[in-house]
Amino acid sequence: MIITKSLENKLRKFAKLAVKTGVNIQPGQMLIVNASVDAKEFATMVAEEAYLAGAGYVDVQFSESNISKLHYKYASDKYLLDVPEWSIQKLHYWMDEKAARLSISSPNPEAFKGVDPARMAKASKAAAPKTSFFRKFSMASGSQWSIVAWPNPVWAKKVFPEKEENEAMEALMDAILYASRVTSDNDPVLEWKEHTTRLDEHSKLLNNYHFKTLKFKNSAGTNLSIDLVENHIWAGGAEVSLNGFVFAPNIPTEEVFTMPHANGVNGRVVATLPLNYNGKLIEEFYLDFKDGEVVAYGAKKEEETLKQLLEMDEGAKRLGEVALISHDSPISNLNILFYNTLFDENASCHLALGNAYTMNIKDGNELPEEELIKQGYNKSMVHVDFMFGSADMEIDGITYDGNIIPVFRKGNFVF
Amino acid sequence: MIITKSLENKLRKFAKLAVKTGVNIQPGQMLIVNASVDAKEFATMVAEEAYLAGAGYVDVQFSESNISKLHYKYASDKYLLDVPEWSIQKLHYWMDEKAARLSISSPNPEAFKGVDPARMAKASKAAAPKTSFFRKFSMASGSQWSIVAWPNPVWAKKVFPEKEENEAMEALMDAILYASRVTSDNDPVLEWKEHTTRLDEHSKLLNNYHFKTLKFKNSAGTNLSIDLVENHIWAGGAEVSLNGFVFAPNIPTEEVFTMPHANGVNGRVVATLPLNYNGKLIEEFYLDFKDGEVVAYGAKKEEETLKQLLEMDEGAKRLGEVALISHDSPISNLNILFYNTLFDENASCHLALGNAYTMNIKDGNELPEEELIKQGYNKSMVHVDFMFGSADMEIDGITYDGNIIPVFRKGNFVF
Repeated sequence: MIITKSLENKLRKFAKLAVKTGVNIQPGQMLIVNASVDAKEFATMVAEEAYLAGAGYVDVQFSESNISKLHYKYASDKYLLDVPEWSIQKLHYWMDEKAARLSISSPNPEAFKGVDPARMAKASKAAAPKTSFFRKFSMASGSQWSIVAWPNPVWAKKVFPEKEENEAMEALMDAILYASRVTSDNDPVLEWKEHTTRLDEHSKLLNNYHFKTLKFKNSAGTNLSIDLVENHIWAGGAEVSLNGFVFAPNIPTEEVFTMPHANGVNGRVVATLPLNYNGKLIEEFYLDFKDGEVVAYGAKKEEETLKQLLEMDEGAKRLGEVALISHDSPISNLNILFYNTLFDENASCHLALGNAYTMNIKDGNELPEEELIKQGYNKSMVHVDFMFGSADMEIDGITYDGNIIPVFRKGNFVF
Repeated sequence: MIITKSLENKLRKFAKLAVKTGVNIQPGQMLIVNASVDAKEFATMVAEEAYLAGAGYVDVQFSESNISKLHYKYASDKYLLDVPEWSIQKLHYWMDEKAARLSISSPNPEAFKGVDPARMAKASKAAAPKTSFFRKFSMASGSQWSIVAWPNPVWAKKVFPEKEENEAMEALMDAILYASRVTSDNDPVLEWKEHTTRLDEHSKLLNNYHFKTLKFKNSAGTNLSIDLVENHIWAGGAEVSLNGFVFAPNIPTEEVFTMPHANGVNGRVVATLPLNYNGKLIEEFYLDFKDGEVVAYGAKKEEETLKQLLEMDEGAKRLGEVALISHDSPISNLNILFYNTLFDENASCHLALGNAYTMNIKDGNELPEEELIKQGYNKSMVHVDFMFGSADMEIDGITYDGNIIPVFRKGNFVF
């Protein structure tokens, strides 16, 4: 991919967006950037913009997916399963310094093709207990963090199989920038301020309504009623880190989302986009729910894969997330399947089969799990999003005193 | 630079050479590779070849010179001068594991243009005492290490200013491979075995002769007598690491070298290639020695720079190294000025003004400095190589009992 003057101009804005809106870097703060070597020019721009915004230090950690693959394939068990002390100390150092973290993610859907999954699992399992302290810190947003995307040839050809590699790369780059609200004539930082404010307002409004139930209906065949847990919290847009700074964990993001009641879902949902699960594409499928559980289902393609997913465990048959996305958003307007959650989950209203987020219920990070389950929290080892939004989606919210409030009309928020 | 099938074939051999001859990786051993992001394809090949040769783990550490430049330019003093504990622990881990180290060096002669040298010096000074233990380990070859080269556009344009950037890159890539003895139809690992054996034999022969003096003469105007220190050692070709493995620290290497007596150099040396010092090119220069010291000199270009060099300190006026290189070597046949010591010092017989190597004198790593100086060791803060070899260089060795032994005839070793 050749970086033309016009693309460079947009990438410069994208870098500013990542640094100012994404991690909201603070004067003197350390920034850790994870980047593929393929994104070296963009990573350099990010480093420069971070310094210009006052960063005290930018540490760019480059990786090469082919080298990671060789590692899983050939490294001796001694080194594959080892987590050297210095690497743990490094994580502690980042925590102590409250370093911000930015991931320039360039997912290669075939990165680990041909690698024994058992060896990969063994490596993760060996590392997990030694690095869990850092995962906890990250998931609780101990400091600001964000993810932006970068194209690579394999991913680009998957999204645009009919194009030549170079054209596919350019098309995916364009799509990423458009979806991230970076255009040649806007100020994306400003636009994101408005955008996340809008998402925050939607969350606030929805929290104020304190709906008991959401009812979904469209011409695709969805006719679904979802009870929310009583103490549910709507989230979306910007977050605040424990060190006190507003940041945007995902670029792009379009969703506001909350927790369905594990036993309170009834009716039929018809998917409006294929679901990519374990490398298989489940197409034109529906699920019928009764008291929270999937009791019937069908798919035109890969029904067997859908079956495997639903049978992963008890929680895989129930919902863990309901997310509302206006149909008129940059991502859904693109009408592209990205084969990547960062994008696809933001293209359309979606549900997730499987585990719920504790942040979507009051005191969710403190209450014991049994108490959460009693309140309607769904527990599972999977969390799989699927899209069911459409241009004619109608959503009503039913309050505890029986009022019916229009939430979506013709695919978009009414407020 | 496009990696064609034919180039890929050569790079694959180059990678094998780096892994097998350069660091001579051992089964189960860890290999640390330092590489520029620009060398990502080659670094990936090196990782693969290392694993295929039995490496236990290959850790490729990528860097981007533009990001390093931003670091020196903008990092806060707090982070610029900090050497975090984890990074010191990492070096200890490498030492404990006796990891081999390979540097894929891609020197950009303008990498730090515009950076305040005082800030760079401050950073090195802050780091030096904390990492000196590792420098010691490296310089004593505690484990195997090697350097190979990789082109970059700025370096390529410096070497081939008349060519377009892409052509210059290809030409420099070709020159690096040719100089490293990698061709489309040879087995470079085998060729290097013969090559380093030849260098070892030269060293051994020269050590056996135990010359008192070397006399140099050619049509360029050199007429120079160099006494060697009595306990001098000729080195060159392969080395043996403290962990017991033969390795080739420099790819390419053509030299055998030893220690002149700081007070025993007399006559005139005329340089046959320009000398790149501090970014200035000193051309067509000569030096007149008396009892080891430069007593007169002249240069057609940059005589003032030559003066500055000679006046750096007392030792800068005396020799610290004499190196013999057959005129008929791949590098000198290329007849290219690389502006890079890894290549240029191997193109021609050379001398170095300034500090001598302790490895070139018996017990040099153990004896106190005063004792070394008494034996003729030269001490200086500089060590600057310059080329004086030619196609008609004649060298005689004079033994302690007055025998005259021909060493070079018509620019090449006679034995």
